[in-house]
Amino acid sequence: MGTARTVTAPQLSAFIARVLQAVGMPALDAATVGRLMAEADLRGADTHGVFRLPAYVRRIRAGGMNLQPRMRVVRERAATALLDGDNAMGHLVMQRATEMAIEKARRTGVAWVGARMSNHAGPAGLYARMPLAQGMVGVYIAVGSANHLPPWGGIDMLLSTNPIAIAVPGGARPAIVLDMATTNAAYGKVKVKAMKGETMPEGWMIDRQGQPLLDPKRASEGFLLPIGGAKGYGLALMFGILAGTLNGAAMGRDVVDFNADFKSTTNTGHVIAAIDVSAFMALDEFTAQIDELWLQMKGSARLPGVDDIRLPGEQSQLTYEQRSAHGVPVGPELQAALDALAVSVGVAGLD
Amino acid sequence: MGTARTVTAPQLSAFIARVLQAVGMPALDAATVGRLMAEADLRGADTHGVFRLPAYVRRIRAGGMNLQPRMRVVRERAATALLDGDNAMGHLVMQRATEMAIEKARRTGVAWVGARMSNHAGPAGLYARMPLAQGMVGVYIAVGSANHLPPWGGIDMLLSTNPIAIAVPGGARPAIVLDMATTNAAYGKVKVKAMKGETMPEGWMIDRQGQPLLDPKRASEGFLLPIGGAKGYGLALMFGILAGTLNGAAMGRDVVDFNADFKSTTNTGHVIAAIDVSAFMALDEFTAQIDELWLQMKGSARLPGVDDIRLPGEQSQLTYEQRSAHGVPVGPELQAALDALAVSVGVAGLD
Repeated sequence: MGTARTVTAPQLSAFIARVLQAVGMPALDAATVGRLMAEADLRGADTHGVFRLPAYVRRIRAGGMNLQPRMRVVRERAATALLDGDNAMGHLVMQRATEMAIEKARRTGVAWVGARMSNHAGPAGLYARMPLAQGMVGVYIAVGSANHLPPWGGIDMLLSTNPIAIAVPGGARPAIVLDMATTNAAYGKVKVKAMKGETMPEGWMIDRQGQPLLDPKRASEGFLLPIGGAKGYGLALMFGILAGTLNGAAMGRDVVDFNADFKSTTNTGHVIAAIDVSAFMALDEFTAQIDELWLQMKGSARLPGVDDIRLPGEQSQLTYEQRSAHGVPVGPELQAALDALAVSVGVAGLD
Repeated sequence: MGTARTVTAPQLSAFIARVLQAVGMPALDAATVGRLMAEADLRGADTHGVFRLPAYVRRIRAGGMNLQPRMRVVRERAATALLDGDNAMGHLVMQRATEMAIEKARRTGVAWVGARMSNHAGPAGLYARMPLAQGMVGVYIAVGSANHLPPWGGIDMLLSTNPIAIAVPGGARPAIVLDMATTNAAYGKVKVKAMKGETMPEGWMIDRQGQPLLDPKRASEGFLLPIGGAKGYGLALMFGILAGTLNGAAMGRDVVDFNADFKSTTNTGHVIAAIDVSAFMALDEFTAQIDELWLQMKGSARLPGVDDIRLPGEQSQLTYEQRSAHGVPVGPELQAALDALAVSVGVAGLD
């Protein structure tokens, strides 16, 4: 591997938009997706940003996503809505759902907007963060886009790594943002290990006999392990019900593996909740207390060998600052994949 | 140890009410608490039902709880409320908060009611289950009543095992109810191991050097491990912020250890959310799909040595049915503690 070059976020989002427009996405939508995907890369979600563009384009070309969606609100109450994304790109569906949740929460204190007929939308934290600027807490839950998890004690992969993100605004300190899958390792990490020819640590996967699976090239012979054993299975199941079943989206056996099938409608489900801090206490009082909690955690005495206590989202924030100033690294393999994509759709490459 | 005798739920709730009335709780409140605590025992939450009565009475006698509370709604919006429990028993505060959440969700689709100045309220599932009968999903989060968890990589116990419960209504099958702490083991389980003279499995606790702690009698030399390592720490922190900080309740360093201090106001925080299923789809359609998911999970092929796949809450439901028919077992140690309590407050024992 050569060294990574870096590109700026505007370069990245313009490239993404150009590619998506070339395969038929309207300019305004392409710009929105480009901006959101580049933000994922800025925040260090390297397997959920531009890395996914070739797969998105493959799905679009296979007819697996709708580029002229007519999203519609299926049901609506004062603090809730169910949005049908009409098989649009997930980023567009969740941008809209989150805007609705924020608007509703401003009036009612809390809002809960579910989405169905959506697609993969990038990192969970992207949407949980959106309410922050409005003085709100964000909670995002999604049904993952492929099943890699059996129920606890089982071997049929009926569940995905259904992630949750929770974001709370900070004051002088950054927002605290948890963004996690309900398995010990996300499946993307297994793929990275396979690519690098490394073995996996115990606890990531087991095989169908229940034995630790350490060779990532044998990943198809086993499945991911949920956090805390039965507890993580429980979280994955409940998150799938809240983000999938309740919205009429795919869950359990109905989940389409988006890595293997580029044509079938995934009917991906998500939910975004926004909680207006001012419905509970003055925003500046709250953020001061979040700052104080940050300092408490940071100030804890540490285990031998530990240099620093991290807050959820802290690393992502550091990456964001670093990449905003110095650019997003693009390794040679990713560069080659994006170059090939640019040629294939007939646009200028990532300059 | 001798064999356990059994008592009926009405016997149990009447006994609890009688004891609480004897130490000054108004009759109506004592009856409510008796009913909720007996329900915890019926559902198999053995460390969160009548087992806690001696500690509750000790706190009441020490002046650590307010028996004549004036609860008040501090802030209110269409879909939210913040309830100040005036240091009442937690069961009373959360019963009221949950009623408010259900009433609001009926109008707005979702509601989120926070509580502060509360106390330990028994098992999380008790409150998450309450919206079920109204065709609603319940989500309950609490700040635990003692800190046993450091931030990931740290050794200062700044966090509790902050639990979550999520309940969704079933149709022909029981409701699915997840009720879990964010640590691999709840602290009550450590105490049970100590009482039985057994060692703990690896993964429950580590000592201040980061080494596995297996002797439960040395529990004070170490701390609990969160599920999924840094992820469980993140969940415990965020749940504490949502149930504690946002409500002006104790969190982090301010949490009072209710096992060590019976006098100081705990200012316990909780939150209950109710989501009206009919805001998203017809209730019978939803419950049919939950039943179908139940069957999918149950029907999974199993790992060697596994007899049955469990759904969250399934064991609790079986226990509920069994104990409703045949009574709640009361072992000799618990019986002796309750006998002593009855004598001490001057009421008839558990008959």
